[in-house]
Amino acid sequence: MQKIRLIPLALALSMAAPSIAAPAGPAALRDAELKDKVAWDFVEDITTEVGPRPAGTPLEARGRDWAVKRLKALGFANVRIEPYQMPTWVRGIETAQVIAPFPQPLVITALGNSGSTGHAGLEAEVVNFPSLDALKAAPEGSLKGKIAFVNHAMKATQDGSSYGYFGGVRREGPSIAAKKGAAAILIRSIGTDSHRTPHTGVQNWAAGVTPIPAAALSVPDAENLHRMLEKASAKGGKAVRVSMVLTPRFIGEQTSGNVIAEVPGTDSDAGIIVAACHLDSWDLGTGAIDDAAGCAIVTAAAKQIMSSGRPRRTIRLLLAGAEEVGAFGGKAYFAAHRNDPHVLALESDFGADRVWRVDFKLPDGHAALADRITAGLAPLGVGPSKQAAQGGADIQPLVDSGVAVIDLQQDGTRYFDLHHTADDTLDKIDPEQLAQNVAAWTTTLSIAANARESLRGK
Amino acid sequence: MQKIRLIPLALALSMAAPSIAAPAGPAALRDAELKDKVAWDFVEDITTEVGPRPAGTPLEARGRDWAVKRLKALGFANVRIEPYQMPTWVRGIETAQVIAPFPQPLVITALGNSGSTGHAGLEAEVVNFPSLDALKAAPEGSLKGKIAFVNHAMKATQDGSSYGYFGGVRREGPSIAAKKGAAAILIRSIGTDSHRTPHTGVQNWAAGVTPIPAAALSVPDAENLHRMLEKASAKGGKAVRVSMVLTPRFIGEQTSGNVIAEVPGTDSDAGIIVAACHLDSWDLGTGAIDDAAGCAIVTAAAKQIMSSGRPRRTIRLLLAGAEEVGAFGGKAYFAAHRNDPHVLALESDFGADRVWRVDFKLPDGHAALADRITAGLAPLGVGPSKQAAQGGADIQPLVDSGVAVIDLQQDGTRYFDLHHTADDTLDKIDPEQLAQNVAAWTTTLSIAANARESLRGK
Repeated sequence: MQKIRLIPLALALSMAAPSIAAPAGPAALRDAELKDKVAWDFVEDITTEVGPRPAGTPLEARGRDWAVKRLKALGFANVRIEPYQMPTWVRGIETAQVIAPFPQPLVITALGNSGSTGHAGLEAEVVNFPSLDALKAAPEGSLKGKIAFVNHAMKATQDGSSYGYFGGVRREGPSIAAKKGAAAILIRSIGTDSHRTPHTGVQNWAAGVTPIPAAALSVPDAENLHRMLEKASAKGGKAVRVSMVLTPRFIGEQTSGNVIAEVPGTDSDAGIIVAACHLDSWDLGTGAIDDAAGCAIVTAAAKQIMSSGRPRRTIRLLLAGAEEVGAFGGKAYFAAHRNDPHVLALESDFGADRVWRVDFKLPDGHAALADRITAGLAPLGVGPSKQAAQGGADIQPLVDSGVAVIDLQQDGTRYFDLHHTADDTLDKIDPEQLAQNVAAWTTTLSIAANARESLRGK
Repeated sequence: MQKIRLIPLALALSMAAPSIAAPAGPAALRDAELKDKVAWDFVEDITTEVGPRPAGTPLEARGRDWAVKRLKALGFANVRIEPYQMPTWVRGIETAQVIAPFPQPLVITALGNSGSTGHAGLEAEVVNFPSLDALKAAPEGSLKGKIAFVNHAMKATQDGSSYGYFGGVRREGPSIAAKKGAAAILIRSIGTDSHRTPHTGVQNWAAGVTPIPAAALSVPDAENLHRMLEKASAKGGKAVRVSMVLTPRFIGEQTSGNVIAEVPGTDSDAGIIVAACHLDSWDLGTGAIDDAAGCAIVTAAAKQIMSSGRPRRTIRLLLAGAEEVGAFGGKAYFAAHRNDPHVLALESDFGADRVWRVDFKLPDGHAALADRITAGLAPLGVGPSKQAAQGGADIQPLVDSGVAVIDLQQDGTRYFDLHHTADDTLDKIDPEQLAQNVAAWTTTLSIAANARESLRGK
């Protein structure tokens, strides 16, 4: 059923202002989406009926099958799976305890691509580093046979910008420790919570490095280990010894895949807009905020546009596979579709909290389009910025190839409380904020898909 | 070092009002405690240097040794361990997953005294009960070979009163399910959080019942299982099947013990005030709020009084053992000390958040004493109630025998977010609220220990 609402006067005026008139739809669509259940049903159903969807595994395949069924039921065109192969790593046992001088268990989780201790485990002295820079400064060979522990002080930020810096502890720390001879590395979770739910995440071994066991401690465990190291140090430099068992393994090349669905446009010369998210998740939670929510948002927005009539441009949903472990899906999509007439790409992959800012990277001569989208988003409390849009991992190859991009920036204040943990579950999604996301996406996609502008550079 | 502060005028006036003058100390002591580090150091050090202290195990014994050392270092008199024997249950493996129709892992933890599935585990259909009453209403034998699942809707309350009612799901549910032939029982955690950290807790098998595996699901897992059951039911009554492995076991009678310490009074005829807490904890967290905090509070308050000169009455600290699994320590204390001249008992065992209310149960003729304590607590934001004080598990036998009792009620709004979970860790303690507790206890103990009244019934 097509949902039509009256456009409030103020909105109608704001929409009348641009020199190139936007279609009458967006404000009505935006308001309709604030009540829509498509997105909520998507996140509720996939987290309940499928749950975790680790890349390259049968669980991810179940997620693809689920998505195909749901997208077809919603009436999308050209719904299909586009498979590809990727190297796959799976979690094993993961336990740890302090052996001396203060014996007690620690809660850990392996980082992606971690090496294994074998079932016998390992026991070693822990060396305390307050930061990645301190680890980098350790002399070569100084960690021989020891466990490096890197603490840090990541705090929540609205734009998530602290993740780039502090995430280096996870991305680079293991290779640096391995190069210096460490037997293993433990990091404080790249997270902003205080729960015993450690944060996993991918890291890739630098060239020539032999993988070592690499794991994250939950934040309370990292703080406890840090206190132990300080107390042991104050008591005449006693060694803190930890034993750990980590048995993850590589299971070779496995099948992953992207799920594609389309809202066909009326003008085949107008190009394609890609609206992306990722369907895989880490294995610890049910992948609710990362990134069932993103897929729910782009699906619900595209559905709303489809229900109100065909847009000028084709909107193509890309529910990418294997994002968490290296954006294999985004790369496979680009390899297969680099010659498609893409004119714009957007991605939703930062949880389900509200959109608070919009960033643009459009070709010259498209300022009026940005103004119309900005005006359409303003009633949702979304303001523009002077930062250029950058896109996300799944559309990175498109953005790198010069395709225009718009970022609907979500509030990330609590995102890193949950990111990559067992706590990434449905109950963390606020239905009202999820609906605001759908409204913002519907507004943006509707205006862009119907814009008279070319969206192409000169 | 004795800490003396000026008493603000308003407090001095409030203290001058009672007909029997309180000693000049309490207000000064109370204000001093708001800055004191004894309590914080206690909780930080025991959670870091000892960690979990499950009853009857060597970990609890380490807790006792740690406490004896700390109490002696603080200058308490007659510091000692009073051992006793108790039946001991220990946790094993605990895993579960939904097998059909929506396969995914579930996070569970065994309830105290749970039976074992054996290492082979069990797999069975789940039967959904919205409440304990619904489980009670199930026909005898109707659960034969099935897993009973009891959901409920406990919400946070400031006084913790909802725990009594909803806790019945844990205390009674397993025996009821076993009597009806269930192969196992899963309950929604008796908790008010939304984290993947299930809440354990003791339950005792009713007479004649053969133990079955009994576990709590984390709240998000319980909600997910509930959604699965509803979806499966909507899809034509498909069975939801769960497999689980729980391998806890009884290891027979083991040694536990109470730790006792005293601030000797000047008047041996004035009787003894018992200030209690418990030193054991559940094994999942580090026992920070339950109940290192309580022991820290009573210790710091007694230390403050001791530092300001000897009180009239002896204050005896009872750091009880084995509270979590049946208050064995409190019972052993009473068995050994029933003939000691107890005149008042108090217990701190409800976390580290602020005292908000004081309840009394004093002998007739002691209203003025209650008034002086109330006046002393008012500047801390603590008001009196019309409810009779009840005490806690460790002093229950004393209270039952007629000893007077005062309850310094703590704010329990977030207590059941953490209670009996892996998340019961130091970071959950707010130093300011902990200090307010110490100030309230110092005020109360100081006034009671120096009171001219007898504190005895007629």
